Amino acid sequence: MLINKLCIIGVGLIGGSLARALKAAGECAEVVGCGRNAENLQKAVELGVIDSYYSDMRSAAEGADVVVVATPLGAMAEAFAQIAPVLREDALITDVGSTKASVVADARAHLGAHFPRFVPGHPIAGSEQNGVTASFAELFQNRRVILTPLPQTDANAHQRIKRMWEITGAEVVDMNVAHHDEVLAATSHLPHVLAYTLVDSLARMEDRREIFRFAAGGFRDFTRIASSHPRMWHDICLANQTALVHMLEIFAHDLQKVTDMIRCADSKALEELFTRAKQKRDEFSG
Amino acid sequence: MLINKLCIIGVGLIGGSLARALKAAGECAEVVGCGRNAENLQKAVELGVIDSYYSDMRSAAEGADVVVVATPLGAMAEAFAQIAPVLREDALITDVGSTKASVVADARAHLGAHFPRFVPGHPIAGSEQNGVTASFAELFQNRRVILTPLPQTDANAHQRIKRMWEITGAEVVDMNVAHHDEVLAATSHLPHVLAYTLVDSLARMEDRREIFRFAAGGFRDFTRIASSHPRMWHDICLANQTALVHMLEIFAHDLQKVTDMIRCADSKALEELFTRAKQKRDEFSG
Repeated sequence: MLINKLCIIGVGLIGGSLARALKAAGECAEVVGCGRNAENLQKAVELGVIDSYYSDMRSAAEGADVVVVATPLGAMAEAFAQIAPVLREDALITDVGSTKASVVADARAHLGAHFPRFVPGHPIAGSEQNGVTASFAELFQNRRVILTPLPQTDANAHQRIKRMWEITGAEVVDMNVAHHDEVLAATSHLPHVLAYTLVDSLARMEDRREIFRFAAGGFRDFTRIASSHPRMWHDICLANQTALVHMLEIFAHDLQKVTDMIRCADSKALEELFTRAKQKRDEFSG
Repeated sequence: MLINKLCIIGVGLIGGSLARALKAAGECAEVVGCGRNAENLQKAVELGVIDSYYSDMRSAAEGADVVVVATPLGAMAEAFAQIAPVLREDALITDVGSTKASVVADARAHLGAHFPRFVPGHPIAGSEQNGVTASFAELFQNRRVILTPLPQTDANAHQRIKRMWEITGAEVVDMNVAHHDEVLAATSHLPHVLAYTLVDSLARMEDRREIFRFAAGGFRDFTRIASSHPRMWHDICLANQTALVHMLEIFAHDLQKVTDMIRCADSKALEELFTRAKQKRDEFSG
């Protein structure tokens, strides 16, 4: 068995699904949960996702051989600070945060001697649904999990966290921290900001035009991610500020060019761009 | 029976689904198709969507009591010009174009004395799929169809085209031409331009960063509309140039404000905006 006592701090969609997957694989003897919402934790026990829970992180992390920090990004520094004094000397620590530079900085600042056994991680999975009731053991199957180990990361810690994710059915990929934050700014953080901005733009002009009444399925798909958790995405945007602002500037520049193509009726350039984009998007689906 | 001989010019997803729905309801005795792709038309006959077809529009439209022009926007002027000389004196003409001012201008220029019996229409339905093989009789059920009759539009023509769409299960809404083009610029044309632009932006930075490999379900939903038909969307963007450029400018301005919120770490403004947008999007889903 890979893990004797697993501590999950933040038992939501991701933390809950990880616990379910490891239990289902018989690779985890005991799961202790921790979080701010007692009702959610009680539900997690009822669902068999965790075996017990504590409201304070120290009690939850004590004696655990693996601690997974699955809180919103804005709560990670506090979590590392809380658990550091009680961690076992051989405990592995990992996280599931959507940005990595900010989490690494928080861990470096607060984990002290445990920092080499901290393996930064990010499962590329999830949805606009939240909470343990949305969790399921198969969430990570055929999904990618990115680990961003540092030069000082313990090789054995890295291998064991890698193994943990492989057990869930994920493909584990190593990447450096900056690369991770750039790629995710492009494929995830930027689209979320565009979707939130679009819905808010249209909402502000809606009263006189009944905008949403005439929206179709394409709009529904396009804006689905604007139903994601506002506080979580607030944290992500601020944690990945530099890479995200850079991507927003590139996008704004490209959008200006497309706007000019339409304004100038540059038929050829417009059709070429749409054709290239469709081809690329079709490849991605297939 | 509402229609004796229906002529569909452009037997794709929309034209094909309309023919199927009217036949299924027993409200159409005969459907004649017309288009540039003989293979597609042959397929439409095999599928029972149309009864026969012609490659020239004049032969197809001759003797029809209702003619539906379902070509791409860029081909509408030519279609009106072709059919005008052979139309019956009581023939109703309608279209399914995604923009209305441009189509009305084309019809006014080419339909001559038939113009009062032209009822501009736009079913808010469709997908990134194309062609008659994607068509189905239920496509318009519980969807909205917008009609934009003009002051000189014949009241009886308007009522009969309205009835035709109601038979397919759609809710028919009247709107003026400019209002239609503004609303659709906001909810449909703008999102398509954003999706195409995003995919193309990322594709151009991909070689060194493997961007798409780490995209998740949110990205897949967000960019689905970038798989739409490039020529069709080229036509829409140019046909609705003014309203679309106006919406693009509003969006670019709002996106700049959000970018500034992130750059300045304006935590409060960012969380408020995301919360407002999520609330609006959740209302829209429900």
